[in-house]
Amino acid sequence: MRVAVLHAPKDVRFEDRPAPAITQPTDAVIRIAATCVCGSDLWPYRGVSPIDKPTPMGHEYCGVVEEVGSAVRSVKRGQFVIGSFFASDNTCRNCKAGYQTSCQHRELVGGAQSGRLRVPLADGTLVATPDIPPDDLIPSLLTLSDVMGTGWFAADAASVKPGKTVAVVGDGAVGLLGVLSAKQMGAGRIIAMSRHETRQKLAREFGATDIVTERGDDGIARIQELTDGVGADSVLECVGTQESMMQAIHSTRPGGSIGYVGVPHDVTLKGDELFFAHVRLHGGPAPVRRYLPELLDLVWKRKINPGKVFDLTLPLDRVAEAYQAMDTRRAIKTLLQP
Amino acid sequence: MRVAVLHAPKDVRFEDRPAPAITQPTDAVIRIAATCVCGSDLWPYRGVSPIDKPTPMGHEYCGVVEEVGSAVRSVKRGQFVIGSFFASDNTCRNCKAGYQTSCQHRELVGGAQSGRLRVPLADGTLVATPDIPPDDLIPSLLTLSDVMGTGWFAADAASVKPGKTVAVVGDGAVGLLGVLSAKQMGAGRIIAMSRHETRQKLAREFGATDIVTERGDDGIARIQELTDGVGADSVLECVGTQESMMQAIHSTRPGGSIGYVGVPHDVTLKGDELFFAHVRLHGGPAPVRRYLPELLDLVWKRKINPGKVFDLTLPLDRVAEAYQAMDTRRAIKTLLQP
Repeated sequence: MRVAVLHAPKDVRFEDRPAPAITQPTDAVIRIAATCVCGSDLWPYRGVSPIDKPTPMGHEYCGVVEEVGSAVRSVKRGQFVIGSFFASDNTCRNCKAGYQTSCQHRELVGGAQSGRLRVPLADGTLVATPDIPPDDLIPSLLTLSDVMGTGWFAADAASVKPGKTVAVVGDGAVGLLGVLSAKQMGAGRIIAMSRHETRQKLAREFGATDIVTERGDDGIARIQELTDGVGADSVLECVGTQESMMQAIHSTRPGGSIGYVGVPHDVTLKGDELFFAHVRLHGGPAPVRRYLPELLDLVWKRKINPGKVFDLTLPLDRVAEAYQAMDTRRAIKTLLQP
Repeated sequence: MRVAVLHAPKDVRFEDRPAPAITQPTDAVIRIAATCVCGSDLWPYRGVSPIDKPTPMGHEYCGVVEEVGSAVRSVKRGQFVIGSFFASDNTCRNCKAGYQTSCQHRELVGGAQSGRLRVPLADGTLVATPDIPPDDLIPSLLTLSDVMGTGWFAADAASVKPGKTVAVVGDGAVGLLGVLSAKQMGAGRIIAMSRHETRQKLAREFGATDIVTERGDDGIARIQELTDGVGADSVLECVGTQESMMQAIHSTRPGGSIGYVGVPHDVTLKGDELFFAHVRLHGGPAPVRRYLPELLDLVWKRKINPGKVFDLTLPLDRVAEAYQAMDTRRAIKTLLQP
C-alpha cells in the first residue's frame, strides 16, 4: 500500500508501506474515500517544523469501515465514517468536558494520505453517516475531519453571538470556514482579513460582510476604524504566527474574545500586553469530535457546504503536486482521491 | 496637605503637597475616611517597577464628598462614596460592556494616601453608600475600591460556577478575597495556595477547603493530584510573576478557565505551551466599578466581610511603616486612617 511520506522540506514521496492492520481490539481499519492536505502539513513541508525522520502524512479522512477490533461496538464494517486527527476514547473526563483533543488516552492519527488507515479508539473517534453518502457530499464530509470543526471551534472559542461583530485573521481553509461558522452562529458583521482575490470571493460567499486587505498594525488600525475604535467582539485567529496573534489581540475589544486555532510557531505573548488588552483568549487543538454529530447533520441536510474550500482535486498518487499547489497558494485546499 | 510620596525604592515620605481642588467640571473632591497600601504599590516600593520621579501614592479610597464640579449630577456634597483606581465615565462603549478600566476616557487615580483627593469623572467613578456608614463597615467598604472587586473579577473571569473546583494562586489580599468570591459564587471546592499560616487561616475562614503549600512544579503536581489528574475547573492568578502564571496555566483542566489579575511583571507566555494547555485566559485591570453596586449591597447587608484582610491599622502619618509591614509580610494589608 502506498502512502505520502515527507522525507525533507518540499520532498513528499508516494511510497510503499505495510498495509495497516488491527493491532488493538479498539482499532478499526478504514478504506479511505477522500483525504487532503492540511495547512498544518505545510509547516514541516516548508521546513519550519523539523522533520526527524521520513514521516507518513495526512490526518484528515473519511471512508468505509473494512475491519474492526474485537472490542469495537459503535461502528461496524461497511459503514461510512468520519474521524479526526486525534483519536480519543470520548469517555474520559476531558472528553466528557468536550475536549477530546486533550483526551487522557489520545493518539495522534497519521498516514491518512493513503488508501487505508488504522484508526485507534474507533468507538470514541469515528462517527458514522446516516447512510453511504452521495459523491457530491464527500468533500464537505471530509472537512468535518479537521478544518470545518477547527473553524467552528475558533468561532465557538471566540464566543460568536447573534448580531455581533467578528473578525477573522487568516484566509486559509480554516479561516474561511471560520467565516462560515460565524455566519451560521448568527454574527451580524464578519470582517475577513485576506489579500487574495479567490479567497476573498469565497469568504464573501461564506458570509463575510467586509474584507480587510491590510496586515499587522495597518490591519489592526483598519479593524479599529470599522468598529468605532473599540475592536471586534470576537476574533478568530487561524494562522499561528506572531504577527497574526498580535493582529488578533489588538483587533479585539476589551472584554471581547479570541478563538485561536492556528498552531503557534515561535509565538510569545508578553504578559503585560495581554493584560492591558483586556481580552479573553481560548484555543488549542480543536476538539472537532465534539462538533462532529452537529456538523454532520448540517452537511447531511445541505445547510452548509464547507467542501467549497477544495478548489483542486487530484488523484492521490499526485500528492506531491497537491502540496506544491497549496504551498504556492495556487490552491486553497487540495482534495486527494485514492 | 500631606500625602505619601515614593521617592526611591523603600523611601516613602509623608510630605506636603498642594491640596486637591476641582479642575474639571466633572471632578469631585473627597475627604478620605480610610485608605491603604496595595500589593501593586510594592512593585515600585521594591524597585521592581521604575520610579521616574517622586510619585504621590495610593489608589484605594472611600470618604465624604466635599465639593463637586458644575457638571456632576449623581453624587453630592456630604455623601459617603467609594471610587476605584481608574476613573471612568461609565457611559462609553467599553464601560457599557463592563470594562470600565478600559474606559475610553479613563484616568488613573493617584495620591489617595492622603487626607483629601480629587476624583475625575465623578459621576461615572463614585458610588454612594445608602447612608453614612458605621465605623466598623469602613474597612470592608474600602476593599471595594480595589482588592475585593479585583478578587471578584478574578473569580468571574475564571468562570467560577456552583459546585466546581477552584484553585487560587497567591495569598495576598486579592488572592484571599478571590477565595471569598469563589465561595460566594458557590464553588464546591476551593484550593488556596499559601505557605503562610496567618493567610492560610484567613483563607479557610473565607471558604478555602484545601491548602497547598507547594509552589511551581510541585504546586502544579499537588493540584493535579487533588483533581484526579485533570486540573481545576477555575484558577485565579493573583500574583503576576512568571512562576505564578505557569502555575495557574498548568493547574487548569483543558477547557477550564484562568482569571488573572496580578499585574504581570516580566511574564512571557509561549504560544504553543498555552495552545496545548487548552485553557481559557481572561484578565487585566479589574473593572471593579462594574461590581461596586452589587458588592456594596453584600457588604452593607453584612453578608460578606472582606475588611478582614486588614490585619494592621495605622494613622496615615505612619504610612512608611505600613509599606514596611507589607513588604516584610508582617501584615497582609494595612489600613491607613487620615
